[in-house]
Amino acid sequence: MTSTTAPRPDAPGDGDPRGAVILLSGGLDSTTALALARAEHPGRPLYALSFRYGQRHALELACAARQAARFAVQQHEVIDLEHLGRLTRGASALLEGSPLDVPMGRDVEAAGDIPVTYVPARNTLFLAYALAWAEALELRELWIGVNAVDYSGYPDCRPEFIRAFEQTANLATRLGVTGQRIRVRTPLISWTKGQIIQAGLERDVDYGDTVSCYAPTEDDRGPLACGRCDSCQLRRAGFAEAGAPDPTRYAAAPGL
Amino acid sequence: MTSTTAPRPDAPGDGDPRGAVILLSGGLDSTTALALARAEHPGRPLYALSFRYGQRHALELACAARQAARFAVQQHEVIDLEHLGRLTRGASALLEGSPLDVPMGRDVEAAGDIPVTYVPARNTLFLAYALAWAEALELRELWIGVNAVDYSGYPDCRPEFIRAFEQTANLATRLGVTGQRIRVRTPLISWTKGQIIQAGLERDVDYGDTVSCYAPTEDDRGPLACGRCDSCQLRRAGFAEAGAPDPTRYAAAPGL
Repeated sequence: MTSTTAPRPDAPGDGDPRGAVILLSGGLDSTTALALARAEHPGRPLYALSFRYGQRHALELACAARQAARFAVQQHEVIDLEHLGRLTRGASALLEGSPLDVPMGRDVEAAGDIPVTYVPARNTLFLAYALAWAEALELRELWIGVNAVDYSGYPDCRPEFIRAFEQTANLATRLGVTGQRIRVRTPLISWTKGQIIQAGLERDVDYGDTVSCYAPTEDDRGPLACGRCDSCQLRRAGFAEAGAPDPTRYAAAPGL
Repeated sequence: MTSTTAPRPDAPGDGDPRGAVILLSGGLDSTTALALARAEHPGRPLYALSFRYGQRHALELACAARQAARFAVQQHEVIDLEHLGRLTRGASALLEGSPLDVPMGRDVEAAGDIPVTYVPARNTLFLAYALAWAEALELRELWIGVNAVDYSGYPDCRPEFIRAFEQTANLATRLGVTGQRIRVRTPLISWTKGQIIQAGLERDVDYGDTVSCYAPTEDDRGPLACGRCDSCQLRRAGFAEAGAPDPTRYAAAPGL
């Protein structure tokens, strides 16, 4: 684990009832969630949690660190889950060394199946870490940027999963048992990608410094999205829906 | 993560409906759960999962490796959670560097409070890892040796927590969504320590090679329990209740 943001001596202390742990990948959705959390209570202490798990899109983490600083989080931690990659390799195309290809085009999701980019039990594990940190800090909110677009394919992005985890969290912890209800906040869950982008632009999100692509590369100007994977196509369509210019640098034009 | 048991070429393959991931600390309870899982289906594939998280009782892990081999698990993995210790230090007396003392005597639990040895969100996190591994292996059972004695103090050892996690697991995963129900098995949950020990002795558990003590030391004959902490006292009382000789080597006599 590396701490990329020094604790801010001027920030409120732990146990603040407005405080929250927020899962931050450095992607479009989690960065929007962070902007919403900050806008809701400008003075609240926020703790951002990212994961390195052998995923192909590690470039996201550099974006996460910059977004954490931009939205003045109290502390940003990156947890290394390389062992998760070793335990689950072969079960997700997003993990390094996987024999599965990242899907290009929307055909996988169109069939209503769970996409091959699904990582086993990922959000359960991420939320469990967030819960451990929240409990140690005596904070009562966990924020996660799951949304309705993911909902179509990933089981652990559905509202019923979130409600079940919240129930588990309240039964699992000292905070829950002592009656200080823990909440899992999912402001994006029912929004379209266009609505997410509009909400973020209203709160000064710099989407040029977020990565959505499943297979990004990098040049001397920064991250370069492939322009072809599912996630790039969703992102492009989202900016079109929002009627906003897309600041992403794509390696391939639409439709290629 | 280190793999301490080589995959067994003669064992059944993944996806076996009798297969299970079992949480194994090397303590009395989890070793008994392992013996029960093995006895239920002698040919089933079992995958044992242990954690190193800066706890003071790391001697347990050597016991876990030997017990995994003894009960012929397919694979034993040890996941390093040192970052959990860093995130939550100060919140549990069981983590190295904690300012809290390990409690001696039963006074903490007698008050009905949550013991200071509670680790934030520990079982949620352990079960989340077990779930990720089970899903990657297409296994449908998670075993955890929580029991009625822990129940008195730790929120994440209660039956209602286990049921909530099981519900979450079935909503979180591809297996659950496709109708292959995931079960969290807790055979010890309503047993006394004496009943646990009796069940284990009937299934050839070598309790001399398990560690319960919160602050064990070691000499050239192996682990040495303190004989004074809560856990040593519960263990001693359990063997007395079972009417069985206690093979544990204690540094201090009862009542000291």
